[in-house]
Amino acid sequence: MQNSARLIALDWGTSSLRAYLLGEAGAVLDKRQLPWGIMNLPEIAAGDRSYGFEQAFKEACGDWLAAAGSTPLPVIAAGMVGSAQGWREAAYLEVPLPVAGIGQGLATIATRSGATLHIVPGLLQRAGLPNVMRGEETQVVGALAGMSARDADDVLIGLPGTHSKWVRVQQNRIAHFDTFMTGEVYAALSAHTILGRTMQRGAPFNAESFARGAGVALSSAGINGPLSTIFSSRTLGLTGELDGAAQADYLSGLLIGHEIAALRASRAQQGLAPNPRIVLIGDESLCARYRQALELQGLDNAVIAAQATERGLWKIAQQAGLLT
Amino acid sequence: MQNSARLIALDWGTSSLRAYLLGEAGAVLDKRQLPWGIMNLPEIAAGDRSYGFEQAFKEACGDWLAAAGSTPLPVIAAGMVGSAQGWREAAYLEVPLPVAGIGQGLATIATRSGATLHIVPGLLQRAGLPNVMRGEETQVVGALAGMSARDADDVLIGLPGTHSKWVRVQQNRIAHFDTFMTGEVYAALSAHTILGRTMQRGAPFNAESFARGAGVALSSAGINGPLSTIFSSRTLGLTGELDGAAQADYLSGLLIGHEIAALRASRAQQGLAPNPRIVLIGDESLCARYRQALELQGLDNAVIAAQATERGLWKIAQQAGLLT
Repeated sequence: MQNSARLIALDWGTSSLRAYLLGEAGAVLDKRQLPWGIMNLPEIAAGDRSYGFEQAFKEACGDWLAAAGSTPLPVIAAGMVGSAQGWREAAYLEVPLPVAGIGQGLATIATRSGATLHIVPGLLQRAGLPNVMRGEETQVVGALAGMSARDADDVLIGLPGTHSKWVRVQQNRIAHFDTFMTGEVYAALSAHTILGRTMQRGAPFNAESFARGAGVALSSAGINGPLSTIFSSRTLGLTGELDGAAQADYLSGLLIGHEIAALRASRAQQGLAPNPRIVLIGDESLCARYRQALELQGLDNAVIAAQATERGLWKIAQQAGLLT
Repeated sequence: MQNSARLIALDWGTSSLRAYLLGEAGAVLDKRQLPWGIMNLPEIAAGDRSYGFEQAFKEACGDWLAAAGSTPLPVIAAGMVGSAQGWREAAYLEVPLPVAGIGQGLATIATRSGATLHIVPGLLQRAGLPNVMRGEETQVVGALAGMSARDADDVLIGLPGTHSKWVRVQQNRIAHFDTFMTGEVYAALSAHTILGRTMQRGAPFNAESFARGAGVALSSAGINGPLSTIFSSRTLGLTGELDGAAQADYLSGLLIGHEIAALRASRAQQGLAPNPRIVLIGDESLCARYRQALELQGLDNAVIAAQATERGLWKIAQQAGLLT
């Protein structure tokens, strides 16, 4: 099996490192997950941070490199490993840009193993309020690789998470993207405000409470925006209308509903189609929540993409000429 | 001076207890502040929470009561002391209601000192998403007491703080109120999200950064709402456009700007006048920030009220017949 290995692909983020051994056409031959995110490196020697990266790199793929023998396998990585706090900064590319342009901006590191590590750059958008992403650009490329040329020609790609990204792709270009801090705001509200005090944790997901929260942005009260409507997670509890066990999913729905309502308002402001083709990438249960909230607002054209990261790394390596 | 004492008025919240000795026409004869908020009572004996309240009450006004001699002074309190976690729950009154109706709903406690403590009820609004306040209703009454009948007939009262309240008073009725968790959200974002990491604290207030943030809600990017625009506090730092020392005031302005934009949108939705008479109540520097943000959005008819709590307690005591 090792014989057909073509690429080592690393998804190297803040808190974890995922490694993929890819074969012909990007087929996953092997994969592993290590805890060595860039903020959690092994054995950092004082004054030599690169040592921690080297160690993590060796654990992630040292054996794969050795098994490849005399024909060195190319290695590519995406994520925070390319940030200013990473191993080497891969300078942001500016949006808008052609999707195929991402593979033209790789930074490189000559590792102690002898292998060259190629790092995918993040994206920066200066128009309006500035926006950045690092890692998601690779998932976007991966999702597009799995679509027909026609479908990929005009699509909105959603990457829900701590910082949700919504990326508009048109005519093979990354035209625009937005960030919503929905996941991190949810966590901060739940753990560090009065809203958390009446929440009972650990209940199984309650789709009804989630839908109730997701509907708030559409109600007449929704016009006040999330700074105001979030208080209802508490007051509906005070008036006996919302159990403590239902409040977490209600608040989650409420925030995601506001996010999607804002997205719709923004599209309307720009004269874009109200019900675009949507591809969601990320944690399966979170994507399911987003799809539920999207449908509630009439956005019923969403699918969930799988394996976007490894597919994206493969595609970018191809764009960069690493697979010739 | 004690001879002319007419009322003891307590502003008894979660974290502190303010006591006022009021004379003719509500003139403040003496005042003091104690740390005995309802979540911070002195010497709570196991199983007897009321003991802590009794001790705090005695320290707050025992000497004033004793000095009054044989004609007992009436005592009134507002704030969280009347909540379910307080000394005695003063059941919420429902909005809309006549302003003068607040004095009809006082709860009473026969204290060990012999004096009766009267507690002002909070307000509950069930229309739309439920809303509650406790303590602010008294400040609203106090602010109205300082206005001409004509001015008080149609006014929007803003109480910025941890949970900002906006109270619409029309024809001597509390018609409607909204809550924005702006202060608490700001604190949670600053202390518990990635936005805090690049903020440098302790810089003096920077009105320019505040105004820049407050303008975001009015910009085309503002349509994405605060879940999205808050990220710019970080990204403007990454692109070198916003110093770490300016980020706290920028974020504060951004959130307050969204709050006021939402208030305006909501008024427009309801067909209310776009530039109402506004009275602000609260911390002086925070009220100044709100006035700045209001003016930026064309709401240039705002004044700041002083002594609203003690005036409100006096007025409600009068309404309740405690001063006859």
